[in-house]
Amino acid sequence: MYKVDLNCDLGESFGSYKLGLDEEVISYISSANIACGFHAADPLVMDYTVKLAKAAGVSVGAHPGFPDLVGFGRRNMNVSPKEAKAMVQYQIGALDSFCRAQGIKMQHVKPHGALYNMAGKDLKLAEAICEGIYEVNPELILLALSGSEMINAAQNIGLKVAREAFADRAYEEDGSLVARTKEGAMITDEEVAIKRVIKMIKENKVTSITGKDIPIKVDSICVHGDGAKALEFVKKIKLSLEEENIEIIPLHKIY
Amino acid sequence: MYKVDLNCDLGESFGSYKLGLDEEVISYISSANIACGFHAADPLVMDYTVKLAKAAGVSVGAHPGFPDLVGFGRRNMNVSPKEAKAMVQYQIGALDSFCRAQGIKMQHVKPHGALYNMAGKDLKLAEAICEGIYEVNPELILLALSGSEMINAAQNIGLKVAREAFADRAYEEDGSLVARTKEGAMITDEEVAIKRVIKMIKENKVTSITGKDIPIKVDSICVHGDGAKALEFVKKIKLSLEEENIEIIPLHKIY
Amino acid sequence: MYKVDLNCDLGESFGSYKLGLDEEVISYISSANIACGFHAADPLVMDYTVKLAKAAGVSVGAHPGFPDLVGFGRRNMNVSPKEAKAMVQYQIGALDSFCRAQGIKMQHVKPHGALYNMAGKDLKLAEAICEGIYEVNPELILLALSGSEMINAAQNIGLKVAREAFADRAYEEDGSLVARTKEGAMITDEEVAIKRVIKMIKENKVTSITGKDIPIKVDSICVHGDGAKALEFVKKIKLSLEEENIEIIPLHKIY
Amino acid sequence: MYKVDLNCDLGESFGSYKLGLDEEVISYISSANIACGFHAADPLVMDYTVKLAKAAGVSVGAHPGFPDLVGFGRRNMNVSPKEAKAMVQYQIGALDSFCRAQGIKMQHVKPHGALYNMAGKDLKLAEAICEGIYEVNPELILLALSGSEMINAAQNIGLKVAREAFADRAYEEDGSLVARTKEGAMITDEEVAIKRVIKMIKENKVTSITGKDIPIKVDSICVHGDGAKALEFVKKIKLSLEEENIEIIPLHKIY
Repeated sequence: MYKVDLNCDLGESFGSYKLGLDEEVISYISSANIACGFHAADPLVMDYTVKLAKAAGVSVGAHPGFPDLVGFGRRNMNVSPKEAKAMVQYQIGALDSFCRAQGIKMQHVKPHGALYNMAGKDLKLAEAICEGIYEVNPELILLALSGSEMINAAQNIGLKVAREAFADRAYEEDGSLVARTKEGAMITDEEVAIKRVIKMIKENKVTSITGKDIPIKVDSICVHGDGAKALEFVKKIKLSLEEENIEIIPLHKIY
Repeated sequence: MYKVDLNCDLGESFGSYKLGLDEEVISYISSANIACGFHAADPLVMDYTVKLAKAAGVSVGAHPGFPDLVGFGRRNMNVSPKEAKAMVQYQIGALDSFCRAQGIKMQHVKPHGALYNMAGKDLKLAEAICEGIYEVNPELILLALSGSEMINAAQNIGLKVAREAFADRAYEEDGSLVARTKEGAMITDEEVAIKRVIKMIKENKVTSITGKDIPIKVDSICVHGDGAKALEFVKKIKLSLEEENIEIIPLHKIY
Repeated sequence: MYKVDLNCDLGESFGSYKLGLDEEVISYISSANIACGFHAADPLVMDYTVKLAKAAGVSVGAHPGFPDLVGFGRRNMNVSPKEAKAMVQYQIGALDSFCRAQGIKMQHVKPHGALYNMAGKDLKLAEAICEGIYEVNPELILLALSGSEMINAAQNIGLKVAREAFADRAYEEDGSLVARTKEGAMITDEEVAIKRVIKMIKENKVTSITGKDIPIKVDSICVHGDGAKALEFVKKIKLSLEEENIEIIPLHKIY
Repeated sequence: MYKVDLNCDLGESFGSYKLGLDEEVISYISSANIACGFHAADPLVMDYTVKLAKAAGVSVGAHPGFPDLVGFGRRNMNVSPKEAKAMVQYQIGALDSFCRAQGIKMQHVKPHGALYNMAGKDLKLAEAICEGIYEVNPELILLALSGSEMINAAQNIGLKVAREAFADRAYEEDGSLVARTKEGAMITDEEVAIKRVIKMIKENKVTSITGKDIPIKVDSICVHGDGAKALEFVKKIKLSLEEENIEIIPLHKIY
């Protein structure tokens, strides 16, 4: 039987600022990437979100990002590998504290935003991040873009790794994501998006923006919970996968 | 044989800003309270300081403070017990990550500055902090002012607790510290300070500012490494204690 | 003819985080208190909000707060008068830059949240803030709680001052606001609230929580734009005031 | 008679963290670039530094940087021109408040660190910054690297501009600074450094790293006050320039 994880970024509120439909989307996913206080979240939000995930039986991962709250961690920052390693260790420890307080095990780590993008293309940066995670807890699973340098880095370091794909993004022939600035970068037709995901899972293939089928390995699909439309799509994709006899399970059950 | 721990705040540098003679004072103490990024320190400083402590064989504790870098965590902030609990959990987790990466166990938690002072007088705040620590790891030892509400709170929660005293501070008859703004609050004569410490350890007594001997229980003496003079005093107190056959050992060996 | 200003806190969004119905409420008020980046707002939000106010013909004031983004400036912080003075000067300068860029004059300064509350009861703190404002620009008007120490401080310093009242809050016999934690602190009946405001303006009186009429001087009414219900109330109060021949004008036209 | 400005970065302390020999170096320079709270400084430090400059008769400029305190504004951040413009406006306003409180006029703006480097090579970014400065106050002088895109940008926008050179840095044949990572990037021989500066001022030429004389226009020399050695060099260069009949005057006297 086919299996896949559905992951979603959660816990992105901050102080008086509310972001995301966490309470709704939590019912439809199997893994939650929880912000750790650098690009979003604060200690109370993290505590709340870990409890929410635990109550929903959703596996918890850290979602470390750049120390850039105003930019939501989406602006590239020229940090050294050593700095990246330390900031990832700091953030996964911070989140792990709330997991331990709730008696649950942290499952995975998924770098956020610009850190995710930069590490996806920079092997040294990616290796530093993987080394940081491995040092803290070698049981943690890195969740990273299928085909990216982060996957290579994790394998080099010996860190467990899961490959994610995006339902709503187009792919270049080399397997990289089409830049958002390019026409056709986003898959806006939901039916098309779902079909693409099913093909990724069942056939390990995706049709690139040039029309050519390319190989892709997928352990997890990234979905969004940042609005009513996104939420509807999550429901739809979950239902469609189940109808296709694709089981939705958290990452740690893949290993 | 008499025993006591010597604790010192370390790892208070931040980015390009250097503070404290950590590399020197580390040789003379048995427990290090390491800042966790809220009132001081950053991930690289924390990583460095944990490695420094490990290399020196000094036990490591978290030193969580208020999110007030510009005020160095020394300004009272009207946080709720719930907020205090979450911010302490966040910070001890962050530091623990660096301990785990180095294969060492975190020994204790000592709240910093205004958080220490406020929790010393507010049982509810203190209980929230103790509860937060206990939930994350019931083996952690709270290091707190002898006679303060933090000691009571730890006992209420069932958290291990060690009592600290200050060599350079005068005490009121009720066992509280004389406010710094009051005359005579600081013990400036080093010989007097050392004699007071020895009496605390051997006789469980200290002479209050009114001249009356009052009872005091001491597991740890707080020393400072923030200047050449402070460093000299640490050397002197260590030597004097050893001459008095008082063994200097980290907190966890007391239990 | 009677005159009053309607003021509202605006520009409280931050980065990806959106707060308040600024674009709607701006049509109904005469003065905007714009956050300055400490408790809320960032440079882009400030730029946007100043332009929004200019386009709507609404007068602009600075809304400086504590450096506590996660607490939204609502947690008391034990800052010295000197620190408060400097942080207010910093923030009013920051906002003034966007005013100058738009060719408009900053009209007033209204301290935010915990800073407002603390300065309302602490004459020294209030005087330091007033001194800070006066030094930067003696033409600025302080907007402060009617009857508070801030009013006294402004008069001591020689700073222009306008007195504000709250439509939705009950008053103690001594003219102070009833603490939110006390029953009856909030005036929830909109009709009652509006009648109270009209009485304040026309008769310089308000009925205290004990039922006794007490004197109150009001130059400005504080309204809120943080939700659909608040917005409806702003529309209603504006209409009601106009029907009562009370002209709504910005603060600087009172002088 | 030849004239040149000597500029130095000041006011880089933060809270309990002290950086730089501001009180010493202030006697030897004509213009001070004062940090504005993003990469360094806090409101009290800014207030203090403006007063220090005023007392020494040194002209004041804003030194805006990236919102990256832990990285001291030295890490490239991928901000949009619009974000850069707003953050510069915010910071120059904040500093201007302290100037106005002291009754002095702000003279110039010099972007700091990574913002300086990025804008020196990116015309769009540079133009956004210049536009931001011009909108706030068209009398302000931009202080920028001689030959950089910032000079071009200022001229495009109509903003006054002064060109600075570095005594301790080697130049490429195209007039750009040799990257610090390259051998020979730093001029370590003080006598050589001073001779180079005198040649820049008197002959408008500098010998590039390849040995070829290239044209350079210099209104200001950047010196450092971050250590005893740097301070000695400032004294020496000031004396040498005066012996060569080169008058040291603040930027605004050049126009």
